Amino acid sequence: MIPKSEIDEILSKYDKNNITIATICAHSAAQIFQGARKEGLKTIGLCTPDQKIIYDSFPLATPDEYIMVKEWTDVLSKENQRRLVEKSAIVIPHGSFVAYLDNENLQNNYRVPMLGNRQSLEWEGDRKKQREWLEKAGLKLPKEYKTQAEAGEKVFVKFPHAKGGSNYFTAESDKEIEDGLAELVRAGKISQEDADNRTLQQFVEGDRFYPHYFYSLTEDDRQVDYGLKEGRVELMGMDIRIEPIDESYRGLPNVSRKFFDYTVTGNEERIVREKLLADIFRMGISTVNKSKELFPPGMTGPFCIETVYHPETGFVAFEVSARIVAGTNLSTRGTPYEALTFEERTSSGRRISMEIKNAIEQNKLEKIAY
Amino acid sequence: MIPKSEIDEILSKYDKNNITIATICAHSAAQIFQGARKEGLKTIGLCTPDQKIIYDSFPLATPDEYIMVKEWTDVLSKENQRRLVEKSAIVIPHGSFVAYLDNENLQNNYRVPMLGNRQSLEWEGDRKKQREWLEKAGLKLPKEYKTQAEAGEKVFVKFPHAKGGSNYFTAESDKEIEDGLAELVRAGKISQEDADNRTLQQFVEGDRFYPHYFYSLTEDDRQVDYGLKEGRVELMGMDIRIEPIDESYRGLPNVSRKFFDYTVTGNEERIVREKLLADIFRMGISTVNKSKELFPPGMTGPFCIETVYHPETGFVAFEVSARIVAGTNLSTRGTPYEALTFEERTSSGRRISMEIKNAIEQNKLEKIAY
Amino acid sequence: MIPKSEIDEILSKYDKNNITIATICAHSAAQIFQGARKEGLKTIGLCTPDQKIIYDSFPLATPDEYIMVKEWTDVLSKENQRRLVEKSAIVIPHGSFVAYLDNENLQNNYRVPMLGNRQSLEWEGDRKKQREWLEKAGLKLPKEYKTQAEAGEKVFVKFPHAKGGSNYFTAESDKEIEDGLAELVRAGKISQEDADNRTLQQFVEGDRFYPHYFYSLTEDDRQVDYGLKEGRVELMGMDIRIEPIDESYRGLPNVSRKFFDYTVTGNEERIVREKLLADIFRMGISTVNKSKELFPPGMTGPFCIETVYHPETGFVAFEVSARIVAGTNLSTRGTPYEALTFEERTSSGRRISMEIKNAIEQNKLEKIAY
Repeated sequence: MIPKSEIDEILSKYDKNNITIATICAHSAAQIFQGARKEGLKTIGLCTPDQKIIYDSFPLATPDEYIMVKEWTDVLSKENQRRLVEKSAIVIPHGSFVAYLDNENLQNNYRVPMLGNRQSLEWEGDRKKQREWLEKAGLKLPKEYKTQAEAGEKVFVKFPHAKGGSNYFTAESDKEIEDGLAELVRAGKISQEDADNRTLQQFVEGDRFYPHYFYSLTEDDRQVDYGLKEGRVELMGMDIRIEPIDESYRGLPNVSRKFFDYTVTGNEERIVREKLLADIFRMGISTVNKSKELFPPGMTGPFCIETVYHPETGFVAFEVSARIVAGTNLSTRGTPYEALTFEERTSSGRRISMEIKNAIEQNKLEKIAY
Repeated sequence: MIPKSEIDEILSKYDKNNITIATICAHSAAQIFQGARKEGLKTIGLCTPDQKIIYDSFPLATPDEYIMVKEWTDVLSKENQRRLVEKSAIVIPHGSFVAYLDNENLQNNYRVPMLGNRQSLEWEGDRKKQREWLEKAGLKLPKEYKTQAEAGEKVFVKFPHAKGGSNYFTAESDKEIEDGLAELVRAGKISQEDADNRTLQQFVEGDRFYPHYFYSLTEDDRQVDYGLKEGRVELMGMDIRIEPIDESYRGLPNVSRKFFDYTVTGNEERIVREKLLADIFRMGISTVNKSKELFPPGMTGPFCIETVYHPETGFVAFEVSARIVAGTNLSTRGTPYEALTFEERTSSGRRISMEIKNAIEQNKLEKIAY
Repeated sequence: MIPKSEIDEILSKYDKNNITIATICAHSAAQIFQGARKEGLKTIGLCTPDQKIIYDSFPLATPDEYIMVKEWTDVLSKENQRRLVEKSAIVIPHGSFVAYLDNENLQNNYRVPMLGNRQSLEWEGDRKKQREWLEKAGLKLPKEYKTQAEAGEKVFVKFPHAKGGSNYFTAESDKEIEDGLAELVRAGKISQEDADNRTLQQFVEGDRFYPHYFYSLTEDDRQVDYGLKEGRVELMGMDIRIEPIDESYRGLPNVSRKFFDYTVTGNEERIVREKLLADIFRMGISTVNKSKELFPPGMTGPFCIETVYHPETGFVAFEVSARIVAGTNLSTRGTPYEALTFEERTSSGRRISMEIKNAIEQNKLEKIAY
């Protein structure tokens, strides 16, 4: 693990009047670039040829500079790292950034300052660590089982590497699980190792609510009464992810297998009953607080807790994303929630650049980047 | 029933340059506070300790003053009423306000001026009166039955006190109804009295559309050609409510009982085919007009008609909410419909404060408060 | 077909400082009027008495002038054409415009300049031509079959004239198709001719994404690297259409026939995974390019490609709408996508008026109207 001091050393030499926002051109890069532009910051897009059309086609989301790469892992090259550091770049890690570059690389070989705490990517990326984190934060999690028989109800079969939910399936017997795994391996969709390391999770009935948070260290301590140690946990928006299963009812009465697919394809906005926001804020605060204990100085910046709510069971959290989530792509024209915090419409992408500017002004850039 | 003259007397002593907007901290209070602030009005939040985190966490929705209560019914205390009147407060009734404080209390013991006409809360709160109102307004309603056998099709089993749809269920036989009721009573979820007073309603197939209206008495009579007696019926937005049943398809092929739950958990935005807006406006206008006859001077301010639309049957209205609905919480960054009426984005919460300011300016506050 | 030169001749006499935007009061007229007002252009609404309530009820969407007609076909009268030309009107064709007035009339008898290329309406209106267009543009289409037996899977039964999807149905056997058609004919819902000309289309599993494009000829050639011959293909927003089938799951476990209805009743906003936007832009560009070959000078202005996406099959395009679609009615307060192109919120309606103003300024009105 690259020590924090090494990144701080790099940051200390940055030209604070010419900070650049950099990220790879995927996932939520469009709003990150557009938000930086709104805040008057320069942008660099690390881009593959097939994705460039997206960012060239959105005039307000075209980065000031492209660094073209053939494969995503080229982002890790010494030369590309050097170019970013030379431009006083802070890299914004997002879902694809983590998925394409691999945590081990980011922890050990990537010497460009990143927004937030790079340790949090490790804690979100490892299913066991993530579970430990959320459990210790006092959140309610789906139960996990060794067999379906033990569960005695429908279970969700998940794999170590999320890849946007692809190949996940539900099953109501151990035979069904076995057959499903064998078929996936045979089709080359998962490895035998993945099959062996499948997790059986309780299938939680209820409505999905994915709150988009932003943990700021440059704002007043408004929530100190609620146990937050410093800063402010903001609610930026809320969504659900759309997967083929979400159109499965259109296949009624005989729904074909192809609809039972949990790969994320898009997002829709959703808001929650106002009284439930108390739980939403409490979950956000305790998750932030616990991160400070588990991997000091803890998580900062955008994050999301993926939940299912049912009146009988309350919120069950089945995932935490310790970085910007793609659902925030809904937020470029504002959301019902960020409007309660900001006068001007503020996407999560813009919020990131605001935080960086505030941190520079308050002379605490090293608190929000690692 | 507190006579109108008594409330008018209180209003007459109000400091018109320092009107305060007050409501209990729940349901749609965040947008009400944020909207008042936008319009330059002071705010008071009547709040329980467990809900305060919500309003403290939204900087633009934090009321200027909190009045803390242990239980919601403490809102009704003489002392708390006095404090509000002292601050020239107009109370905004919303769904939780009505649910927590009980109509009888509000009608007979609550001497703080409320936006709108407090009689309308009685007409919406009593299922029979509500039905009379909508039927006389010419709206198409779901049929009601004594038994499922009479219906000959699936029926919706509903209870006298809505409580956000909790415990409602559908059934296809009288046996199923009997068993369902017995189970709910046994589980302590409903009282035997509720079970005895269950309503069997036609299960209406189609798409839900919940238009959010605002009936203004301070605007031009644009709709006099369409029968509206005075003022303007505005369309502020539209939503559907999310309930566990709305994710039930994710439990296919064997959907568990827990998904058949109609408790409201959240909301999503939805718009309707443009030509159908003619019906939407006509329903709004006739519902307003009929209210003027049934409980003069009738309903004013925000309201909602909950409908299901099917191409073969048109709109069926199964409910009217004679006050702000939680679906308008979607509107703080504007909606596709209010944009056709207002230059600046106008949530229903903000619209309320605009109306109060306009009424003061036009010297007709007593027309919009009771 | 009225020759282009004849329309150009009319356009050449227009008062370029007093262009008027005209359309029939239906479908997406509200945003078209509101957008024109934002851009400072005058508006004329061709309106039937029963629809006028809609446009009178939205202050910012009330046209400056109404031309009242008893039936929609009266729009085609010489007198009404003369009145529009006299006012230097450009007509905006939308879904209802095409449905009510019939393509043959528009092609041969309607001598008012229309936004875009009136030939594109013919190419979208004829199912075979549309298929040819999209196939030649390289898009993936649903397979078509002569019988269900040939398909060997569930098929979608569609009719020559779309009418918003009404009477479409799915079937899993040829017997079911036969019975379904016979019943529709018997009920007078479709003609025997429609039944004979039914199309059997592959039922495509996946998530719907309906991107709203705008093809501008007044903007920089940003996408020339991606094969676009001139101008700019913009992404304005995205939606799904709501039909009764979309609430069918609420009828579980025994979903009644009435829910299996594909008539469009409304819309909801949806966004797609960012990486998939590359395909979205490529589909838009190739569809535009191909139109230039098939019916020069090709399609301009707003259009939509209706798609279903599944991770295993990619995007399948089942329709192109070569004019503004009703899903853009979501856009009056902006969308997550147009925010990446425009500083101020820009609905498709407003975009139309911007394009017309730009074209006048650049002296190329005849390029965007026919």
